[in-house]
Amino acid sequence: MLIIGELINGMFKKVGHAIEARNKAVVQAYAHSQVQAGAAALDVNCGPASKDPVSDIRWLVETIQEVTDVPLSIDSSRTAVIEAGLDACRAGAFINSTTADAEKLDVLVPLALKHNAKLIGIAVDTRGIPQTRDQRLELAAQIVSSCADKGFPLQDLYLDPILVPVNVAQVQIKDILETLREYKVISDPPPRTLVGLSNISQGACERKLINRTFAAMAIACGLDAAILDPTDDNLMDALITAELIFNHQIYCDSYLNAYRRR
Amino acid sequence: MLIIGELINGMFKKVGHAIEARNKAVVQAYAHSQVQAGAAALDVNCGPASKDPVSDIRWLVETIQEVTDVPLSIDSSRTAVIEAGLDACRAGAFINSTTADAEKLDVLVPLALKHNAKLIGIAVDTRGIPQTRDQRLELAAQIVSSCADKGFPLQDLYLDPILVPVNVAQVQIKDILETLREYKVISDPPPRTLVGLSNISQGACERKLINRTFAAMAIACGLDAAILDPTDDNLMDALITAELIFNHQIYCDSYLNAYRRR
Repeated sequence: MLIIGELINGMFKKVGHAIEARNKAVVQAYAHSQVQAGAAALDVNCGPASKDPVSDIRWLVETIQEVTDVPLSIDSSRTAVIEAGLDACRAGAFINSTTADAEKLDVLVPLALKHNAKLIGIAVDTRGIPQTRDQRLELAAQIVSSCADKGFPLQDLYLDPILVPVNVAQVQIKDILETLREYKVISDPPPRTLVGLSNISQGACERKLINRTFAAMAIACGLDAAILDPTDDNLMDALITAELIFNHQIYCDSYLNAYRRR
Repeated sequence: MLIIGELINGMFKKVGHAIEARNKAVVQAYAHSQVQAGAAALDVNCGPASKDPVSDIRWLVETIQEVTDVPLSIDSSRTAVIEAGLDACRAGAFINSTTADAEKLDVLVPLALKHNAKLIGIAVDTRGIPQTRDQRLELAAQIVSSCADKGFPLQDLYLDPILVPVNVAQVQIKDILETLREYKVISDPPPRTLVGLSNISQGACERKLINRTFAAMAIACGLDAAILDPTDDNLMDALITAELIFNHQIYCDSYLNAYRRR
């Protein structure tokens, strides 16, 4: 499974301050610790308080690339910020994200093609978060269809059914798991699937237990990628074990040590 | 999910000695602790060393029923032992188990009907453990068909795809998860599904981590019941959380305390 580290986000106080103060050491420490813990890519988000996100994202990308060459996932709802992030990226990149809205897809799919970037497509549109399985499928189909029309390679598309907090929309989670399975048969080659894991436990108690239990369930439904906190050791052990059970890694008695990257 | 406690099994040294010595206290302590921890039924097995299993199972059932009235799962490959166990059962009972062999089904299905017992049907026959998803489906279909012919209520049938150790037959586990889903569409009303959870980690390291990770994955595939060790707290927390995510329990901030029975 592709693990994208979520910790470099200006929404987190320490990171927000580091961005403002242009404190490289803090950002680089988060980059280093996440890659050490098993992240194969890093999400990069200036946070909602950024006054100059175009400049901030460029600084973040350059700062991170001084210590690691894993792909970066440029996380913004603004095209200019995504473009600035992609321009600064030396290695592979992800666009995080496009919605199912035509005006987004018409800009971001060509941008992903131009930069040879992977694309995260979230099953939302201007109407907001879908409430049913059918809506989640319909929105994903719109994204897939737009990508196919524009010649974007579908195996580089990561569909996100948009995870909702279990304490707010508990009734939807079972459908979301089912949706992960449905997304895999939406096209050939199939798109990949992705979730922003922490969303499921937003505002809930027992967040880490909920995160790692859902992650194992999602892997059983074919999940390909997740944006998460790779420094949560119990989560990583659950992921490694679920991947083993799903035959993505070969069992050996020391499998945890073999696949742990910390 | 229905949790059947696995600890009263003569294969475990302490229990084996207790059966031999007719030591009620040991057996009753295992009964009590498992029900306290959340078991809704208890598996009862004399173990392979029993010299007089008919007498032993009767003693075990009577001994357990002195302290609890949860249903008992009479676990034996011998019909005479199952019959003796059922005769001694006051509350509900499970027959654990029939295979897909006609000569087994022709005896055990009528026996289950006579005693109003639930029936665990394992997807094996005299040829041994199935190697493929098709074989697991075919064997289950034979069990369902025999039950339907004999008027056995299919919602009282628990189909077990037979779990194999991840360190021996890793390639099969993904198919077994898929099989759990397939079993639910084999008939209407659907049969229930069950696994003997500990089998997956037999001989492996990290047994508890493998057990609880697989359990969450199996719940995502619709698992209805499992024979397991309910005194493993981390396992029970994972089960409670997976059930919550699957919307089988209502979320509240103190959900763990609310659903823990210890």
